[in-house]
Amino acid sequence: MNTVETTRQQMAETIRAYNLKGWSPATSTNYSFREDQQSREIFVSRSGIDKSQFQPEDFMCVDMEGRATAAYADRKPSAETLIHCVLYDLFPETTVILHSHSMYSVLMSQKYEIEIPFQGYEIQKGFDRQVTHEDRVLIPVIDNSQDMVAFSGWMRDRKEAFSNHCFVIRNHGTYAWGKNLFEAKRHLETLEYLLEVEWKALFA
Amino acid sequence: MNTVETTRQQMAETIRAYNLKGWSPATSTNYSFREDQQSREIFVSRSGIDKSQFQPEDFMCVDMEGRATAAYADRKPSAETLIHCVLYDLFPETTVILHSHSMYSVLMSQKYEIEIPFQGYEIQKGFDRQVTHEDRVLIPVIDNSQDMVAFSGWMRDRKEAFSNHCFVIRNHGTYAWGKNLFEAKRHLETLEYLLEVEWKALFA
Amino acid sequence: MNTVETTRQQMAETIRAYNLKGWSPATSTNYSFREDQQSREIFVSRSGIDKSQFQPEDFMCVDMEGRATAAYADRKPSAETLIHCVLYDLFPETTVILHSHSMYSVLMSQKYEIEIPFQGYEIQKGFDRQVTHEDRVLIPVIDNSQDMVAFSGWMRDRKEAFSNHCFVIRNHGTYAWGKNLFEAKRHLETLEYLLEVEWKALFA
Amino acid sequence: MNTVETTRQQMAETIRAYNLKGWSPATSTNYSFREDQQSREIFVSRSGIDKSQFQPEDFMCVDMEGRATAAYADRKPSAETLIHCVLYDLFPETTVILHSHSMYSVLMSQKYEIEIPFQGYEIQKGFDRQVTHEDRVLIPVIDNSQDMVAFSGWMRDRKEAFSNHCFVIRNHGTYAWGKNLFEAKRHLETLEYLLEVEWKALFA
Repeated sequence: MNTVETTRQQMAETIRAYNLKGWSPATSTNYSFREDQQSREIFVSRSGIDKSQFQPEDFMCVDMEGRATAAYADRKPSAETLIHCVLYDLFPETTVILHSHSMYSVLMSQKYEIEIPFQGYEIQKGFDRQVTHEDRVLIPVIDNSQDMVAFSGWMRDRKEAFSNHCFVIRNHGTYAWGKNLFEAKRHLETLEYLLEVEWKALFA
Repeated sequence: MNTVETTRQQMAETIRAYNLKGWSPATSTNYSFREDQQSREIFVSRSGIDKSQFQPEDFMCVDMEGRATAAYADRKPSAETLIHCVLYDLFPETTVILHSHSMYSVLMSQKYEIEIPFQGYEIQKGFDRQVTHEDRVLIPVIDNSQDMVAFSGWMRDRKEAFSNHCFVIRNHGTYAWGKNLFEAKRHLETLEYLLEVEWKALFA
Repeated sequence: MNTVETTRQQMAETIRAYNLKGWSPATSTNYSFREDQQSREIFVSRSGIDKSQFQPEDFMCVDMEGRATAAYADRKPSAETLIHCVLYDLFPETTVILHSHSMYSVLMSQKYEIEIPFQGYEIQKGFDRQVTHEDRVLIPVIDNSQDMVAFSGWMRDRKEAFSNHCFVIRNHGTYAWGKNLFEAKRHLETLEYLLEVEWKALFA
Repeated sequence: MNTVETTRQQMAETIRAYNLKGWSPATSTNYSFREDQQSREIFVSRSGIDKSQFQPEDFMCVDMEGRATAAYADRKPSAETLIHCVLYDLFPETTVILHSHSMYSVLMSQKYEIEIPFQGYEIQKGFDRQVTHEDRVLIPVIDNSQDMVAFSGWMRDRKEAFSNHCFVIRNHGTYAWGKNLFEAKRHLETLEYLLEVEWKALFA
């Protein structure tokens, strides 16, 4: 089995497991990967799939501008495909991008306008290059928009804020990415844990 | 396998999965489907089944007035069958109706008398024809009743409020429906997510 | 497979499923059944079993005073076996008794001294002979004790309060029973749902 | 299958089950066991494993100072291996050590400086030698540190406080241990339950 086939399967397993955590209700969220850091073909989940039943063949292929490649011309990519394209362009080491509609990201985004601070948690070391719980970690919050071109512009404007490989979209969810699926999962799970524990700590 | 058999199986899987989410404690909730939008035979879950073990053969057939058809004369339909009949009558495009006893619908129904408003959440797009998070969505709340004839009358009175294909019954649960199982699931999961996140946001 | 063997298997499945809900942490809780309403032999879970791995053979047999029968003389019955014996004695129609250490029963028992009232919830109909959400249901709370003889006395004193086939032990958990496993499950799940939803409603 | 192989498999099953409870987000937590109470070789989870997919072969072997043994010289032990070594040294009856990043331990550690008190809960009997719910149980809290040598010193200083076979690390998680896997699980699950129920009781 070649790398793309293996990643399709591992991604599909991850997507179904995250659905059970409640991170992709209805047909929400979308996911992508590419074969390696040089590849300009992106495998992205197609639009409107029930993630509890996501299958390896539910990925379609788009170019770096989010247009379906010839072999997938009959399929519709997810509306947020452009977010994925911009992330691969801004952070070329990335090969996997994960997304969630977690409730705690939505809740925390109602309390913090620009960025969400975390400090003192051991789990912060789950972010790449964080080596101690003592540092202050800032995760950016971006306003939601249905205008993907505008949204992408905001992302480019705040590129330097994305050093922890993730961000929150207000009243929408989270994005996290990495050099491979293993690292992208670690970043997403670290962020989701921090959002939930901090929410509970704030409103005790 | 014909369409009815396939739907029986897919519905049974959905029912068991939703039981694990805590949406059908004890023997609560009931579900239905019909073969197509013209069909006047309704397959409805029979009364008093433990939903953690629901099987395809646990559906029985009733007519549009909720009376068991000849082949199922020895079985008792669920007490709420008449709610299903009225929904198929009011919204003839419907072929699947789902129900839940989710706690957050019960809790939210204690705070809102007539309807529950949601605004600003990306997940609102899970409702058919909602295309942006910016609109205000109103989900009707109906008082609970053991008198199914009276209850059905209230539903007919408020038909125009049901444009998002779902409603809440006070201290009872939710109903959601759609043109097929995929759409009905999307409507139910969208509503359940909104109820839970809004409850948590309100009482933080 | 005879009735006892079937029930052993169905009980073991139920016990493992309830463990996943968090109702039997560590090695807590115990369960019992008997072959029929005339039987004076009780099959009770033996002491100190991890309920995530409970097997049909983890039931042992005791008499109506809680003493191991000859075939099981080498096994230790659960410390709370006497509670089961008293319930079978007080309510002779009972053939299955379930127990939980659910957190919401513990929390609610800290707020109510003598009994916990519920009113207006559709799920109340999960209790045998409750036919409407409009009635007021009272579930007794008993103080915890390590003295099983004293505890049994308190149960006998309050027999008339147990008409809904369940009660709460303070800072400990719940007991629920029924004419068969199906009914005992319905009673337990109805109680657990009510305790959780009412706790959340009270402290919103 | 010899004892080490059996324990590797049972530990791996436990680790995956606890991951589903949310106790090991990202690649957090680490676990260990040894063949018997005399053994000076410790099997410890290697660094950076996704616990949702932990396998029996993901344990490596270290000596009592935490150095990889010859057969595992190419693998990196978990950063917290030294904590495990100190626990086996301080409590020589121990053969299994479990760890969690549970949210309720993090939350409770923000409210209690030195130790967390519990009293009146039946589940307290899950701790070895606790025979009644009436006693007051004190669980020590230790400040988090990335300096494992300093951390180990604090553990040695407070040895007498560890009589319930567990402790909490501030904003990090819990450790629990036992004479075997069964007992270590019982201690960990007892502690986790107490932390959650007490948090909910405190902030109702």
